[in-house]
Amino acid sequence: MVRTGETICAPATASGGALSLIRVSGPQSIEICNKIFRPFKSRKSLTEETGFRVRYGEILDGNKIIDDVLVTVFRKPDSYTGEDSIEISCHGSPYIVRKILELLIKNGAVSARPGEFTMRAFINGRMDLSQAEAVADLIASSSEASHRLAIHQMRGGFSDEIKALRQELLHFASLIELELDFGEEDVEFADRNELLRLIRKIKDISLKLSSSFKTGNAIKNGIPVVIAGKPNSGKSTLLNALLMEERAIVSDIPGTTRDYIEDSIFIEGVEYRFIDTAGLRETSDDVELLGIKKTLEKIKQAEIILLVDEVTDNPDIINKRAEYLRKITDNENKRIIILINKIDIESSSEYVNLKKRLFDEVKLGKNDSLLFISAKNKIGIEELKEKLSEVIGTEWRDSEDVIISNIRHYEALNNVAESLARVEEGLNNGLSQDLIAMDIRQAIHYLGEITGEITTDEILNNIFRNFCIGK
Amino acid sequence: MVRTGETICAPATASGGALSLIRVSGPQSIEICNKIFRPFKSRKSLTEETGFRVRYGEILDGNKIIDDVLVTVFRKPDSYTGEDSIEISCHGSPYIVRKILELLIKNGAVSARPGEFTMRAFINGRMDLSQAEAVADLIASSSEASHRLAIHQMRGGFSDEIKALRQELLHFASLIELELDFGEEDVEFADRNELLRLIRKIKDISLKLSSSFKTGNAIKNGIPVVIAGKPNSGKSTLLNALLMEERAIVSDIPGTTRDYIEDSIFIEGVEYRFIDTAGLRETSDDVELLGIKKTLEKIKQAEIILLVDEVTDNPDIINKRAEYLRKITDNENKRIIILINKIDIESSSEYVNLKKRLFDEVKLGKNDSLLFISAKNKIGIEELKEKLSEVIGTEWRDSEDVIISNIRHYEALNNVAESLARVEEGLNNGLSQDLIAMDIRQAIHYLGEITGEITTDEILNNIFRNFCIGK
Repeated sequence: MVRTGETICAPATASGGALSLIRVSGPQSIEICNKIFRPFKSRKSLTEETGFRVRYGEILDGNKIIDDVLVTVFRKPDSYTGEDSIEISCHGSPYIVRKILELLIKNGAVSARPGEFTMRAFINGRMDLSQAEAVADLIASSSEASHRLAIHQMRGGFSDEIKALRQELLHFASLIELELDFGEEDVEFADRNELLRLIRKIKDISLKLSSSFKTGNAIKNGIPVVIAGKPNSGKSTLLNALLMEERAIVSDIPGTTRDYIEDSIFIEGVEYRFIDTAGLRETSDDVELLGIKKTLEKIKQAEIILLVDEVTDNPDIINKRAEYLRKITDNENKRIIILINKIDIESSSEYVNLKKRLFDEVKLGKNDSLLFISAKNKIGIEELKEKLSEVIGTEWRDSEDVIISNIRHYEALNNVAESLARVEEGLNNGLSQDLIAMDIRQAIHYLGEITGEITTDEILNNIFRNFCIGK
Repeated sequence: MVRTGETICAPATASGGALSLIRVSGPQSIEICNKIFRPFKSRKSLTEETGFRVRYGEILDGNKIIDDVLVTVFRKPDSYTGEDSIEISCHGSPYIVRKILELLIKNGAVSARPGEFTMRAFINGRMDLSQAEAVADLIASSSEASHRLAIHQMRGGFSDEIKALRQELLHFASLIELELDFGEEDVEFADRNELLRLIRKIKDISLKLSSSFKTGNAIKNGIPVVIAGKPNSGKSTLLNALLMEERAIVSDIPGTTRDYIEDSIFIEGVEYRFIDTAGLRETSDDVELLGIKKTLEKIKQAEIILLVDEVTDNPDIINKRAEYLRKITDNENKRIIILINKIDIESSSEYVNLKKRLFDEVKLGKNDSLLFISAKNKIGIEELKEKLSEVIGTEWRDSEDVIISNIRHYEALNNVAESLARVEEGLNNGLSQDLIAMDIRQAIHYLGEITGEITTDEILNNIFRNFCIGK
């Protein structure tokens, strides 16, 4: 996987714009580009150029002009990858991009693999592993909140703390291993109280970080929401009411509208993803036939269920539906928001009575809510958004605490906490030094995996293969 | 439309890549970017920076970090637009791109309209109008040949010649108008023979250029090809055989495959577009029911028709089909390539007889060809490609002659030739000076429209509204 001797190249921008960027990195990058580039108004060759300088000229295939381009030179170590690098900004024609890549390859470059630029940045010490992972998260970020997590992690996030704690732990591990070398002599270089304090501290930090994963994951991937309900209760009208407002907000800057994800809304910077349950055949308002059987899996994935009922529905039926949802989701933390829709169709006195009855008789679970809305007339939509917003709470917004959103970190942190719990228990129970040393080594290993101080080709492959080409 | 006092901004790359480029241009561009950019490792502000310099730093919204970016400064007139300009290279997240655009707008920039950067380049004299149009063609170019036309035009193409001829004509127009001022005195400042020579020269050049439009248009937009034939004659197999090879060729550089257009093949750098005739109901092998009735329009648009028959078909039926196609296209220049498919299914002696009979009895029009193929076994596919390639000929490849591909230029050139034909006739028939002067003025006007020496808001709007945002 790792091949730093080669010079790699790839398109760094998507196809279809006015301009395209091509990236080249590696020991030969400037030399290779120099062969196919002729500057306008200058006799200086690219190889004589200093870093952070842009040159205007043309890409040539022999005598044939391929394009007028801007070429930016970066000199190691002051580049993204830490290597000599070139960025070519050309016109956004697929033909031109392909032609330039072909020329680069003909002159000695190779096609970059997904994430290879960032992997080189990691290998050359330009960033640690969790920062490299944050780059992919940053590119994928579609909401204010997910962007905030990614930026924080890219800027070091908890890496520095993890590295420092690991260093302290390494110190103790060496002392204990030194004790082992003395065998029978029963010396004690490592202060057991101090060690215990450190173990507890790291364990607590690990548990706290790992417990932030639920919030982090929801922020990063969006909170899954399912809309359930009998036919014609107004599910699509509700979804449209939620989405339409969003569309209006995002469409005020030309050229950016299409970027937005279908069927997602953003409330206070957090993404809520509506899970597609289209194609359900809903043939009756009988609870069993809500059509949700077929989407059991989807409903289980959902963090929130919007159950859409009508103001004229019998409270018992509504309760049955809600019970059924609770039963099939089998998760008492799942939040059901019962929406009483079509409050517009009843005359006011009737409505007051219907509402009162529903208010009294609809039973709510501990996480549930009841809201009266008119999807058609957009009544109650703001209140619904506030309810949705409550799900992941507000504490994380004002807090400076680190939130982790990467499942690899989550698993590593859990492993750290587990190993350290064993160390703690071992220390308390007078377990033999060699077993304690082993558990400490394991915790050190997992801490090192997070920041990349310990990596294997397998870990690197797993991380970088999910990157896009050109990053 | 034209508003050069404003500073404009827009994304210049498509959404979905590792990186995105944002362009800012106009008098305030550097100042506006300076407000939202904080450089790393430098105290120098963007406003102090010279052109063609790249700075690394972060985009800030108040204290909130939006992204780590590279910012390139361009100083007027040495920029694409001829104005002070900035390019911001950020991570390719739609959220980040939108956020940066919002910040730019909040600080005084406005969203750029489609083509507004290039329009400014034209207005500031960085390129003439036909060069500006070539930029759009260049971005859209998908074949070697269309790319070549666009590059040639972008580099001036015929602009310089047109401008020089227009200048000469202007000189004569002034002389003739001067004569008019002298009224009854019957002076002759403009040498009539010299004028006649110039008129003929410009007329000939205009006609020659305008006659290249057919080739230019085919190169630019691809040559439309229709595949016709009775059901199960192997039309889809043939299309797949042609396309599959193409797919294999274009997919050897990762990240570029998806750029390629569906159902197009490239032969010697020229694009052949297969016109979709899917969805035809073909229920019989009767000529009248080839299914082509419904696609009459599409067949009329096609430059080439591939008529797929089987080796066991009766020559008379094949002739009837071809005749029918000739009749409905009503264009004797339309080229029909009669393909006798499935030469694999017959044993060799039978095949020789069948082939001989078809060879003798199938009638070909003057532009038609007959080929024996097996789409399934990919026999004869190369020969077919050679035949396709013959259509636009080879002369233009080796010639240095200008080929025009823009319908606006085509129309202007025809108008020039027409006005000058009237001048020529007028001179020969001793028409009055004022009428001749009017026709010369008209020719001058049309020549000026090509290069943009004469423009109206309407012309500019028509040209630039078809550009993409950010160009």
